[in-house]
Amino acid sequence: MQALTSHSFKLFSPLLSSTSHRFPYSTRSSPRPSSGRASMERSGPDFPYLPPAHRALILNLLATVDDRLGSDLLPSAVPSDVIRLQNPQGSAHGSVDIRTGSQTSPVDFVLQSWLHCQTPGGGEINIATLFAFLNSSTDAPHFLLELIQGSPTSLVLLLDLLPRKDLVLHPDYLDEFYHQTDLDGPRRDLEKLPQASPYRSSSLFIRSVLSPTAIAITVDCGKEGDVKAMEDIVAREIGSAAEKIIRIWLEKSAEVRGRVVGEGEKEFLESRDGLIKRKAVEIDLAANLPRMFGPEVAQRVVAEIQKAFRV
Amino acid sequence: MQALTSHSFKLFSPLLSSTSHRFPYSTRSSPRPSSGRASMERSGPDFPYLPPAHRALILNLLATVDDRLGSDLLPSAVPSDVIRLQNPQGSAHGSVDIRTGSQTSPVDFVLQSWLHCQTPGGGEINIATLFAFLNSSTDAPHFLLELIQGSPTSLVLLLDLLPRKDLVLHPDYLDEFYHQTDLDGPRRDLEKLPQASPYRSSSLFIRSVLSPTAIAITVDCGKEGDVKAMEDIVAREIGSAAEKIIRIWLEKSAEVRGRVVGEGEKEFLESRDGLIKRKAVEIDLAANLPRMFGPEVAQRVVAEIQKAFRV
Repeated sequence: MQALTSHSFKLFSPLLSSTSHRFPYSTRSSPRPSSGRASMERSGPDFPYLPPAHRALILNLLATVDDRLGSDLLPSAVPSDVIRLQNPQGSAHGSVDIRTGSQTSPVDFVLQSWLHCQTPGGGEINIATLFAFLNSSTDAPHFLLELIQGSPTSLVLLLDLLPRKDLVLHPDYLDEFYHQTDLDGPRRDLEKLPQASPYRSSSLFIRSVLSPTAIAITVDCGKEGDVKAMEDIVAREIGSAAEKIIRIWLEKSAEVRGRVVGEGEKEFLESRDGLIKRKAVEIDLAANLPRMFGPEVAQRVVAEIQKAFRV
Repeated sequence: MQALTSHSFKLFSPLLSSTSHRFPYSTRSSPRPSSGRASMERSGPDFPYLPPAHRALILNLLATVDDRLGSDLLPSAVPSDVIRLQNPQGSAHGSVDIRTGSQTSPVDFVLQSWLHCQTPGGGEINIATLFAFLNSSTDAPHFLLELIQGSPTSLVLLLDLLPRKDLVLHPDYLDEFYHQTDLDGPRRDLEKLPQASPYRSSSLFIRSVLSPTAIAITVDCGKEGDVKAMEDIVAREIGSAAEKIIRIWLEKSAEVRGRVVGEGEKEFLESRDGLIKRKAVEIDLAANLPRMFGPEVAQRVVAEIQKAFRV
């Protein structure tokens, strides 16, 4: 499973299957049900494999998104055999769900997924992703969160607002979305953690896609490490950074309703976004999904994502 | 002098004053004269303040550049009061020299400088820079080296080939100049040093200018540290990385003679390069030079650099 952790940007994220076709976790009063069963009753399969702190973090983020963007998102059209994934051996489980934005919304899609997979050595990998793309009615950045947990005491975190433009050519864009929002603050805070060290994707393209304030770290609580310490970091420091950043993203994507993006720029944004989406599928999904789920399941998921990505 | 180390990309580099108007250090057989006096006799003031290993590293790089690009570069037109700088108190010394490319050359300019400055606490700061820009006849990357030594046992290194294009929009460019050249190898090697940790410029613009394989590190050999260990790292690991990268740059800038850059792209390259140059002057020189040398000297240097930059 080496490739799984060497490439980041997995495009997989914790999913809530929603038979109601609405994010079912907007009940902020209970973001962290104590048992899988309770949440099953409420809303169907609910991150059954994700460690509790990861699960709570993602639930909170999704609730925040739903509070602000709920009416912008169309019901999920993802078929049930993508919403629930499993390999023939039963050693890998997962879910991919996508909701696209309505005609009048600046949201292109929100993709959420989780993947769980047992490794031959007896360990397991959990990958949770939340990926929110805007369409070409705005040039505001996209949101990306990915948590790749390779052991109970170590993980890779990618958390960023992805720029839509060349920041060298557009210093005003850099100033508006990255400097004035103090997006560097959460990065600085997380990198100060003694357990954190920089993470670099082996893909130069993926490094190029990230912003200069991207959080890309490995958190390692030691080999025989402290599971509780890791859970605390996810619940507190990572949770707090993710919440700050998704709120900035929501504010910025809401603001853009008043902005006008010209036709030429729309074309440019679509073409640049298209490259990111195509490369993401090529670098990541096409390489990793077959290994986890076999070619048939992988093909189904890739087709569904390509449909949402329109690539 | 906080700002000196918090902003990188100083645009200052070790200079050899060359009355002959040719790089005088192309005698590869003696790149590291044992005394300042010996080199004075050969070629005028020769990095009098730079630590020996830094001096040797820069001399070697300049000799490599001169071997390959000598005939591309016009004689320096920089006046002697910029080639030799000093503040009224005599606590800061430095030199900035610039050679522009000939009409038929792909080189825009090669800027080399060193700055030395005593700090109120009795310490000193040495900044050595080599900055080689190409013109719009090619889209090959620019070369940047900066060594900022804040104490005998700690320094900041920036070493990179700066992309001329948005790498997300141009994955072929990324592949040609960064992936196929294995520019990530020297970065990996240097970051493995136990004394190295990542360095981030406080300027988001400068972070955006750097490539995904940029070497941006702090090397720290301890507070009461080992001066010899630091010198060894500069001489071996940093020297080797810098030599590899400047050779890649020289190869790529030579290759471009066969390439054709269209008129529209030329304009684009000029405008993007112009932004980098203007921002570099604004963020760095205008902020730091007056502090080191007083307003009059600073103005002289900035004017000379702006002339070469054509901004």
